[in-house]
This record gives sequence, C-alpha cells and structure tokens, in this order.
Amino acid sequence: MELKSLIKKIEKNNKKLEKDAQNKIDLKTKPIGSLGVLESIAVKITMIQNSLNPVIKNKSLFVFAGDHGVAEDGISAFPPEVTPQMVLNFLNDGAAINVLCKHNNIDLKVIDMGVNFDFEKNENLINKKVKKGTKNFTKFQAMTEEEAIQALQNGIDVFDKINKKKKIDIIGLGDMGIGNTTSSSAIISCITDIDPEKCTGRGTGIGDVKFQNKVNIIKKAILFHKPKKDDAIDILQKIGGFEIGGIAGAILAASYYKIPVVIDGIISTAGALLAFLLNPNVSDYIFAGHKSIEIGQKAALNFMNLEPILDLKMRLGEGTGASLAINIIDAACKIMIEMASFEEAGVSNKE
Amino acid sequence: MELKSLIKKIEKNNKKLEKDAQNKIDLKTKPIGSLGVLESIAVKITMIQNSLNPVIKNKSLFVFAGDHGVAEDGISAFPPEVTPQMVLNFLNDGAAINVLCKHNNIDLKVIDMGVNFDFEKNENLINKKVKKGTKNFTKFQAMTEEEAIQALQNGIDVFDKINKKKKIDIIGLGDMGIGNTTSSSAIISCITDIDPEKCTGRGTGIGDVKFQNKVNIIKKAILFHKPKKDDAIDILQKIGGFEIGGIAGAILAASYYKIPVVIDGIISTAGALLAFLLNPNVSDYIFAGHKSIEIGQKAALNFMNLEPILDLKMRLGEGTGASLAINIIDAACKIMIEMASFEEAGVSNKE
Repeated sequence: MELKSLIKKIEKNNKKLEKDAQNKIDLKTKPIGSLGVLESIAVKITMIQNSLNPVIKNKSLFVFAGDHGVAEDGISAFPPEVTPQMVLNFLNDGAAINVLCKHNNIDLKVIDMGVNFDFEKNENLINKKVKKGTKNFTKFQAMTEEEAIQALQNGIDVFDKINKKKKIDIIGLGDMGIGNTTSSSAIISCITDIDPEKCTGRGTGIGDVKFQNKVNIIKKAILFHKPKKDDAIDILQKIGGFEIGGIAGAILAASYYKIPVVIDGIISTAGALLAFLLNPNVSDYIFAGHKSIEIGQKAALNFMNLEPILDLKMRLGEGTGASLAINIIDAACKIMIEMASFEEAGVSNKE
Repeated sequence: MELKSLIKKIEKNNKKLEKDAQNKIDLKTKPIGSLGVLESIAVKITMIQNSLNPVIKNKSLFVFAGDHGVAEDGISAFPPEVTPQMVLNFLNDGAAINVLCKHNNIDLKVIDMGVNFDFEKNENLINKKVKKGTKNFTKFQAMTEEEAIQALQNGIDVFDKINKKKKIDIIGLGDMGIGNTTSSSAIISCITDIDPEKCTGRGTGIGDVKFQNKVNIIKKAILFHKPKKDDAIDILQKIGGFEIGGIAGAILAASYYKIPVVIDGIISTAGALLAFLLNPNVSDYIFAGHKSIEIGQKAALNFMNLEPILDLKMRLGEGTGASLAINIIDAACKIMIEMASFEEAGVSNKE
C-alpha cells in the first residue's frame, strides 16, 4: 500500500479488551500480578490481536542494512566495509542474529536498503536498495525527499511481500550499518529535544576522542540542517539512514496490519520514533525488546511511553535483543491460553 | 551418594578455561563485549562443562513442594491447602510452570518433599516426603536434625535418579509451599546477618498487618532458636522447610556432577544459600535465573556473589523465572558454538 494512505489507516489497538484480558489473567492459578511483565505483554498482545486467546506461530525478523556517508568522518570503531561484510555473514549464517533466530525458531530476512556493495542473489536477501549509502550529513542532506519517502515505502513493501507469502504473527526488527548509531542519536536528539551529549553513546565501542567527535558531528549537523522536529520525512532526509527509514516503514506496515513488532537497540528505536511521528498509534503495536546501553534509546522509549522487556547489557544490534524478547512474548501468549484458572484447577483463591 | 561424602567432593569449576573462553568470544563477529550477559553466561558454562563448545540438550526443572507449620500463623495470603492443590495443578499441566517448561522444551518433575496430603501415583510426581509438613517454628524446631539431613539427602537422591535415567545438561529449581517465603526470609536473615525487615517481602501478596506479623514471627523465631549462622543443618532444622532442604540437596548434587543449576526466586535462593554454607564451590555451578521482588533474594545473591539474569518483575516461584532464563543460557551456549569468527566470516575487525 502507498505510504500516505497507509499512515492514515493505522488504528489504535482494541483498548476495550484490556479489562477482560487482565481479568482472565487474574483468574489464573497464581497470585494477582505475580507474572509481572508477562502479564502486561499478554494484555497488549490481546489488544493487538483483538483476541483473549492470542497466538504467535510465525515469527519473523528483518535486518535492515544500509551505509552511511558520515562513516567517513571516523565516528565508528569499525570501517564502512564491515556493512557489506556483515550482510554476507548474515547470509552465511555466521552472525549472532543467525544463531539467536535459529535458537528461537524465527525466520530471518536481510533487507538491503542502501549498502555500498553489489550482492549476488540470495533467497534470504531482499533487494530494496534506494542508493549505495547516504551522503555525509555533516556536509549534505543524507538523502533527497524522494529517497526518504522511497525508504519508508520500501519498508512497507518488504513487510507486505513476506507477510503475503506467509502471515507474520510477530516481527522483530534489527539493523546493520556502520555509522548508524550516529544517525540514530541525531534523530532522537532532534525529535525529543534532548542535547546530543545526552543521547549519544559509544556505538560499537569508540574511545573518548572519537566519542567527543561523534557528539560534535551530531550537534553541528542538527544546527546546520535544522530538521523540523515533528516532520519525520524532513528528519530522515537530512540526518537519517536508508535502513532506519526501512525500519520505520516496516513498523508502519505491521501496525496497519495489527501485527506486534519488536524493536531492538537504538537504531530500530530511532526508526520507531520516526514511525511514531507519522502516526502515534504505532506504539500500540510496538514492544521494546531490550534496553540498550546507548543512552539515546531511553529518551526515545520514554517519548513513546515504552519500557524494554530485557536488560542483558547487550549492544550489538542486528535484532539480537528483539530475538530473545520474542521468546518471552510468545511465553506470555501461551500463559493466556494454556494456564488453568482457579476454578478449572480446583485451587482455593486468596483468603 | 551419601550427603557428607558428596559435599566434600564438590570441586570448583575449571577457572583455567576462563581466558580461552573469553578469547573465543572476542574473536567472534561482533564488537568486544557487545553480547553482554550472554558472554558471561557462556564463559561460566564453559568452565562448568570444561569445554569451549558447551552444549545444552536435556533441560530439566524440578519443583520441590512442602508444607510449613508456620502457615497456621496467617503469614500467607493463601490457605495451606493450596500446597497440595497446586501440586495437583502441576500434575494436570495447568500451572504457569507447566506452560513455561513446555514452551522452552524443559522436562518438569514435581518432588513431594513434605506436603500434607497423600497423592496418588503419577509419573511426574516423585515421592520424597520426609514428613507431612514442618512444625510451626514459632513454637518448635521446624524438623529434627535427622529430618534435615534426610531432606538434603532426598534432594541428592532425586537428582541422581533422574540424571541416571537421562543425563541432565541443565537443571532449573522451583518451589511450592504455602508459608515458604517466611522460612526463606528467616534463613537468609540468619545467614547474611541482615535484619528480618530487610529480607522479608510480601510473598503471594499480603497486606500491611500480615506483613508486620510475618516480620515479627521471623524475628522471634531467630531469637528463640538462635540458629548457628554458619551451620546449614542447624538452620534448616530450626527454621527451614523440607522443600528448601530438597532444593539445597539438588544443588549439591548438580554441583558435584558439574551440571549448571538455575535458581529462581527467594525460596530456591535460600536453598542455594544453605548449599553454599555446606560447600561454597556450589556457586560456580549456579545461575540466578530471575531477580525476585522479594528483597531477601538480593541479600542472598550478594552473599554468593551472583547476579540475576532476568528481571521481569515476576514473583510466582515454581521455577517460572528459571524456566525463562534457561532459554537465555541455552542461547549463550549456541553463540559459543555456532557464531563465526572475524576470520571465518572474512569480516574486518576493529580499526
């Protein structure tokens, strides 16, 4: 579906079911509230699927990849050629996200949104390349307006394509792109109006000098481009990345189809924030899979009123945190369906 | 094996492998340290299994159940008959732990260590009943010295029995017993020398009056019995529970066989603390699966220098937190084996 009409059609999840869902949980054989986060997950999934018996069967995870012009300014611990190298690693089943998706029975697809490399055909690689990398946003707009819209549209289209082949019940979103924490922190700083110092982290592990350089680059880029803080396309165009646009598009599509979507670290959270600007109803469909060590993520999650499920001190991206959280979300659904009530089990309730 | 000789034979895990394990992880295609907790789990499992290629296939979880005389003093939100009712719920596949074990492919067994009920035979219930519940420790010793030793021995024996049928690769430990957070907080207060106020929580959800009563009961019991704070059997005998003794015994056995053991909430943590007093090497084999809302757990984990893996605000016991953590531990092992190194994948390392 076309971006603008899809954005308009994203509805809230079914809040009317909230009370019934909590009531169903409260009658199960356990003290009230004792399943903690699993209970709030179960209630949210119920409202998303519009069913008191939520089911997750087909689990998918998309890794969106793209290169960043700003990587030439030495803001990462790794050289830009690592983006295509890691895409090949994904296709060869060698990365952390491959291991974790296989572990939790999640179907993994890699989406080339803008990697500076010509890949051979591969059944797990979907070519949605807008261009071979963004321009360096310290000097130019990262992309044109048309390219920003195309990136969002490509995210929608790839979700559509896979979902049509086999209905997706939950989708995790990850990223690959050397330089993309710089773009993500810039996006988050811009939208949340929080100083770059307070939303910038050390990415793949940079030292103090590179870190200060990264903060300065973000500051200058925001001053230079003055992106409109409530205009997702303007922000994406000026300081974004193609994979971040793709992630935002996939979130819009999943929300439109009422399918739960699990974000990961700071990059997919920045993508979620762009989608949220386009239609705040998307947060009704988003689960924050994992708390990032990147401080910008917290600002972005607060903005959308989301709390991360896991905190395993990971900072790898790729969707790794999302892939582990999907196991927890699936567990919460099974609690809703399979666990007995006090009455069914003949157990005495609280005195 | 007999308790005392087994305790003497528990060795430390193989610390010599620590450096090689971390080195193997550091060469994998990801920034150094970026898999966070998964990395420290992988290193510990490596040292436990004495192999750089740790494998977890057969996953087990034991729920130890027992009744508590102190439950007659109204320290719980639920009546004592809920202990046998919940055991039947476990056997009928209706409880949260059934759902979560099935979800993560974990074999579940229920061990009757001292429930005040005569159960019919069931393949998933193992009868290790020492006695039909402890005595009320506000007035009497909870059990005799012989019974305390028997409880520990029964925990060892049940582990032995299941492990002989089919080698266990990881074991989660849970509990069921109305009144057992009172006993657990008393044990933890006694061993860690922390005031009962600071290690007592609201169990299944008691109000202010019952909570104050619970704290007072623990205080009085410790003053009355004066358990020796470094003598696990004396403590178990005076203020313990049969299922807590069983958990401690299972931890001793798993440690002796060098099998990783995952504890759950405050009750299994209290059991771990007793095992730790008997031989501190056990902490080399223990993973703390989930952070309890019960504040006593933190004191006990600190004492053993353990950090919880998950924090999903659960407070249900039964092994529910352990069952979810086992999925994470399994994932960490697969990272060690399946993930490619920079060299294997042809990815450029950090600049």
